[in-house]
Amino acid sequence: MTNNMDPIGKRLWAIAGGNIPLETNGIEPAFTSRDTISILNVNDRDARLKLSVYFENEEPIEPYHIVVKAERVCRIWFNDLIDPLPLNLNKPFSCVIRSDIPVVVQFSRMDTSSASTAITGTIAFDAD
Amino acid sequence: MTNNMDPIGKRLWAIAGGNIPLETNGIEPAFTSRDTISILNVNDRDARLKLSVYFENEEPIEPYHIVVKAERVCRIWFNDLIDPLPLNLNKPFSCVIRSDIPVVVQFSRMDTSSASTAITGTIAFDAD
Amino acid sequence: MTNNMDPIGKRLWAIAGGNIPLETNGIEPAFTSRDTISILNVNDRDARLKLSVYFENEEPIEPYHIVVKAERVCRIWFNDLIDPLPLNLNKPFSCVIRSDIPVVVQFSRMDTSSASTAITGTIAFDAD
Amino acid sequence: MTNNMDPIGKRLWAIAGGNIPLETNGIEPAFTSRDTISILNVNDRDARLKLSVYFENEEPIEPYHIVVKAERVCRIWFNDLIDPLPLNLNKPFSCVIRSDIPVVVQFSRMDTSSASTAITGTIAFDAD
Repeated sequence: MTNNMDPIGKRLWAIAGGNIPLETNGIEPAFTSRDTISILNVNDRDARLKLSVYFENEEPIEPYHIVVKAERVCRIWFNDLIDPLPLNLNKPFSCVIRSDIPVVVQFSRMDTSSASTAITGTIAFDAD
Repeated sequence: MTNNMDPIGKRLWAIAGGNIPLETNGIEPAFTSRDTISILNVNDRDARLKLSVYFENEEPIEPYHIVVKAERVCRIWFNDLIDPLPLNLNKPFSCVIRSDIPVVVQFSRMDTSSASTAITGTIAFDAD
Repeated sequence: MTNNMDPIGKRLWAIAGGNIPLETNGIEPAFTSRDTISILNVNDRDARLKLSVYFENEEPIEPYHIVVKAERVCRIWFNDLIDPLPLNLNKPFSCVIRSDIPVVVQFSRMDTSSASTAITGTIAFDAD
Repeated sequence: MTNNMDPIGKRLWAIAGGNIPLETNGIEPAFTSRDTISILNVNDRDARLKLSVYFENEEPIEPYHIVVKAERVCRIWFNDLIDPLPLNLNKPFSCVIRSDIPVVVQFSRMDTSSASTAITGTIAFDAD
């Protein structure tokens, strides 16, 4: 049982620079090119999240419903979102993450479109 | 139609570590070395932005005018800016982004100057 | 003796996107795939830290006790944590860092699972 | 002349995860492995900075004096610092940046110790 007396995180986050790389080299899923967000919920109850995804020239898609269990981590591959709609590869997107309780969100990309792996990441923007 | 009751983002952002890599390997534009900013506007009206670009030994260049449509994402390649002036490759720069309404800004670089791709990125500095 | 009149940092930090890559290529330890946090303590007394590590489908593990000496840096390899338990490779995790005095925390990954090195990093989330 | 009515940035910054990679592959200086900070000064007067560098097992070194001219960018290679002392390669360090007026600081690393380039970076921690 963890000491979660302090609330940790925020309820509103955003990332602006999403773009799932088109090509993959190497064994899947280990080397699948991907954009992900990792969500930490240290609370003693489940967090209910709603993701909204924005594009350059199309209407936003929402809501993607995510539950992050109490005292657990959830890693979302944007590649794998299907409801309400899957995302296209190689298409710039942004994502707003709304949670009913505080969570911490970190963005990561693995890009294996060239011979070797490239990775990047950043703590998401705390928009609270 | 998205739920944009919460204002998301800030009106003043900066990145300090810009530098478009000189060389490119691989098919263009997929592998073109680039510095970019991605801008998310969740508001129900267009955001009007003004970019100012700073250098080590020269006067700043401004304004670069950008419009990010309501509920849309805009990805700016610094490589492609032309008005008032294009930027040189391989030359350190910083950029200040001013918006009339709140937006979220994320910086990214793809560097293909060696055989394989390298990527980096960070949420920009919220200077509000 | 440094000028540490200003408190620098926070007492509560988090990273959400941990995942020690499974494979390593190249001479160890220089090229060992790793997730790390670097902790700066500018205070004139030691900082006592407690790390809690969270997972997708298991109970959190805690506490990992860390001491960062006065006016010193400490780099923690998640690969090397053993007490109370070592972490598995290739398993998503998050980490909450609690310190009794202000510190600065930065996350880094080196991933050598493909032929060439990939690196990423971000200032951790300041959860104070 | 830029519109610098808004103060942009902070006077106290830190990065925790410095470490200049030991090896370099490729033509120098384009591919020299390096740790850098980029500093943006949008003010209409010069910024005077003092850097303090911290280590794992040694006394901090300070001050490194830096001037960032008015409305200019300055990129500091930690590899090139010499006064009061040069830094060793392959040695973890942190850096506190104090400025007399607000600036924006971004950290970057290029690591060419394996066959291909790897890059990472993050906006520094705003410690104000």
